[in-house]
Amino acid sequence: MSDVGEGRRARGGGAARRAERTAVRIECAKFIERNIPNLEILNEEALQIIEHNAETILEEIGVNFVENPAALERWKDAGADVQGERVRIPRGLARELCKTAPSSYVQHARNPERNVTVGGKGLVLAPVYGPPFVRDEGGRRYATIEDFQKFVKLGYMSKWLHHSGGTVCEPTDVPVNKRHLDMLLAHMTLSDKPYMGSVTEPVRAEDSVEMSKILFGDDFVEQNTVMTSLININSPMTFDGIMMGALEVYAQHNQAAIISPFIVGGAMAPVTVAGTLTQVLAEVLAGVAYSQLIRKGAPVIAGAFVTSIDMNSGAPTFGTPEASHVTYGVGQLVRRLGIPYRSAGGFTGSKVPDAQAAYESANSLNMGLLAGVNFMLHACGWLEGGLVSSFEKFVMDADQLGVMHHLAKGIDISENGQALDAIREVGPGGHYLGCAHTQANFKSAFWRTNLLDYKPYETWEEEGARDTVQLARERVARMLADYQKPAIDPGVEEALNEYVAKKKASMPDAFM
Amino acid sequence: MSDVGEGRRARGGGAARRAERTAVRIECAKFIERNIPNLEILNEEALQIIEHNAETILEEIGVNFVENPAALERWKDAGADVQGERVRIPRGLARELCKTAPSSYVQHARNPERNVTVGGKGLVLAPVYGPPFVRDEGGRRYATIEDFQKFVKLGYMSKWLHHSGGTVCEPTDVPVNKRHLDMLLAHMTLSDKPYMGSVTEPVRAEDSVEMSKILFGDDFVEQNTVMTSLININSPMTFDGIMMGALEVYAQHNQAAIISPFIVGGAMAPVTVAGTLTQVLAEVLAGVAYSQLIRKGAPVIAGAFVTSIDMNSGAPTFGTPEASHVTYGVGQLVRRLGIPYRSAGGFTGSKVPDAQAAYESANSLNMGLLAGVNFMLHACGWLEGGLVSSFEKFVMDADQLGVMHHLAKGIDISENGQALDAIREVGPGGHYLGCAHTQANFKSAFWRTNLLDYKPYETWEEEGARDTVQLARERVARMLADYQKPAIDPGVEEALNEYVAKKKASMPDAFM
Repeated sequence: MSDVGEGRRARGGGAARRAERTAVRIECAKFIERNIPNLEILNEEALQIIEHNAETILEEIGVNFVENPAALERWKDAGADVQGERVRIPRGLARELCKTAPSSYVQHARNPERNVTVGGKGLVLAPVYGPPFVRDEGGRRYATIEDFQKFVKLGYMSKWLHHSGGTVCEPTDVPVNKRHLDMLLAHMTLSDKPYMGSVTEPVRAEDSVEMSKILFGDDFVEQNTVMTSLININSPMTFDGIMMGALEVYAQHNQAAIISPFIVGGAMAPVTVAGTLTQVLAEVLAGVAYSQLIRKGAPVIAGAFVTSIDMNSGAPTFGTPEASHVTYGVGQLVRRLGIPYRSAGGFTGSKVPDAQAAYESANSLNMGLLAGVNFMLHACGWLEGGLVSSFEKFVMDADQLGVMHHLAKGIDISENGQALDAIREVGPGGHYLGCAHTQANFKSAFWRTNLLDYKPYETWEEEGARDTVQLARERVARMLADYQKPAIDPGVEEALNEYVAKKKASMPDAFM
Repeated sequence: MSDVGEGRRARGGGAARRAERTAVRIECAKFIERNIPNLEILNEEALQIIEHNAETILEEIGVNFVENPAALERWKDAGADVQGERVRIPRGLARELCKTAPSSYVQHARNPERNVTVGGKGLVLAPVYGPPFVRDEGGRRYATIEDFQKFVKLGYMSKWLHHSGGTVCEPTDVPVNKRHLDMLLAHMTLSDKPYMGSVTEPVRAEDSVEMSKILFGDDFVEQNTVMTSLININSPMTFDGIMMGALEVYAQHNQAAIISPFIVGGAMAPVTVAGTLTQVLAEVLAGVAYSQLIRKGAPVIAGAFVTSIDMNSGAPTFGTPEASHVTYGVGQLVRRLGIPYRSAGGFTGSKVPDAQAAYESANSLNMGLLAGVNFMLHACGWLEGGLVSSFEKFVMDADQLGVMHHLAKGIDISENGQALDAIREVGPGGHYLGCAHTQANFKSAFWRTNLLDYKPYETWEEEGARDTVQLARERVARMLADYQKPAIDPGVEEALNEYVAKKKASMPDAFM
């Protein structure tokens, strides 16, 4: 940070001021450590019913491990009943296997100040993942690698975002079998925050490990977790060979995986919340247990991606109360497993970063904080049901993540917090603006937005009566203009570039 | 409701369809009864510290009852130390006096189906209160009685809103000493939901009681609560004669009052949360105790209006984490007093119903639900820090209140909720859309918006790529076009009109 400031200071007044602004913007908050309770909406009886039913699913119905003969062998050896691709797991076995998964782990970043601890009372915030489109002032269009790089830069400069994420958008202008290389390169060189590995083919997971070894060193990667990658389960109860192949690579290398049922309620899970919770728990038990069959102690996060569905149109819906119920409930179930919890994000079905987008995202973000989520993917930038990464919404949501940081701090009940002397000093009918206690505390007392409008009406009108989207657009442009690459060993960067170039040259382009 | 349907049925196809839509729209949900826990962010030790400190304030610093000699006499008689206008209340006395306040009460509406119970696990939602301006497609302007009537109509037609409210906007075109009459008349005749009385002068509170007697009958009003009115405390620790005069009128008639410190944190209360909680509790204890000095058993709600402040500009800020902390904390303190709790709302500082407005409002609404609020004022329509009532935001927020209803229902853990048979029927790799359980439950399974966009991208674009504000604007116009007055006894309506006309004729116009 001081590098940026000093490098610019010589350029005089305007540049110095600009440098100062830049210096502020590349601050990065520590991951959240909650000092507030979780909202526990299921009682003990309900939890036990769901846990019992989940074991019934595993024992009587079973789960499918498809196109993965080695997985079937592993399950047979562990004591499951395997018939074809169907794996039936005796009551209690999966839960027993889950016990070797750590209750928390550290994901290292190349800048050790950006390391995150995943689990416990912690909450790590990561950006949107997966959209093929981006939206900016020009409208919606297919995402490119240049867009991808911009999102990585914005993420690097977002104070309340702890993680650089993974596929912040799909760089559709790069061949599908090569884009993971460019994505990893961007995360590794344009940011110094922790990142996610590729999961779209086991061989791409191998590339992720190899490139991480270049960045961190071989030994470091074998001894530490430097990636957390997203392994979706094809709900209901189906574990496909490609995703499991990627999981196998990561677990073997002691790299973390998010074991995550992908649920559109009413389609991939029952239309009722308790039924969805039951299926999610069964899937999580099977998936996490399988990760431990690969390597005991491999770090995993359990959770779910959950949306509801508009039963009139079939469209997925976001920020809805039923998705909140599932998120609260899965949190309780996963905590009883003793495993870090993944869920939620700044979800919305809206096409544009309007009030709908904000209502739905705020509902989702609040729920994620109070549901005890430990790793929140899609925390910023998500639009249109995950089809679109939005530049404006990225900075809008990222600003709201600051609200979550402050909310999680809880209430300071120290003598200074109690402020009895201030109340005595001011007395009935007085005011606190000038009192000593206010002067001593005002700088840190209240969260302050970096984006939203707090101005007097007249000023706001004179400055063009801008709404949030316009303010966000200007902030995106400013951040990208101010962006400076974090320092990296030139030898390492060269080696990464070489790896990517060599890999790309070794195979023909594929676009499907 | 059936009246509307039948009245229109004869008019043929289009009218019948329109009647059907209208019939749906004037549904009114029952007030919320929570089946989810509250979020309790203060532990027992913190609660005891704050309760101890609040009693210290009352005992050592005291509160002012200004321009109200009768109040000072009452306090003297009750055992307080009164010096000038300062009332010092011995430790424990105020809490003891509060014990006669009921833990819940029924506020009657002229349509008994719209009665609300305030207290316990309940949550009653009421619209914005107080703004001098309105905003619509033409921008911001001073509110008129016509605007006021429109808001009452929108409130009447909003399914998730239980209460017609009070000053939904200030009808600035009506003389200040007469506008309460027009406002009451609008609530009484254009809606059949419960409403609030006037508090701006004791004599206007008397008018509110008199008009209520015309509407409900003399005996009914003396024996039942038909109004809940807003009594602000001039924080810090000042109870002004006008507000207390209105409180006295309502308490004498067994009508409910909201005893509510008005706090802009850092100005009217300490800049720290625990300090604010302490002061709020002291004020609430004194105010509620005073209501019981007027009439033991008079129904009251305790709570606070709380915002934080932008320490850079002095502007009040909304939807912030510190206001959330205060709201959660006051809820715990008020519940320990055994009194219904008022707080929160769809707060925002934004000038327009944009993403900022929605983020801040959603933060506030979620917090209100989870803080255990029993009576939520400003639940819809609030804009620009309470300076503006917005038509669009009214229907936007009112739609989100449906999310709160569904969230509060909690999780159905019945056998149907568990859905184990559905999971068995569908099995690994199947889908739930067609299964019997989904068919049986899909209509009620998921909350569905009446406003937001769930359409496919192409449809949305063809229909003009409307954002939430545009959708809301159209919905406002449609609701007002479809509005039909609820049936009222013509004799009662005539008597109300006569009362208003006579009162207006009895005094000169006043505009200050």
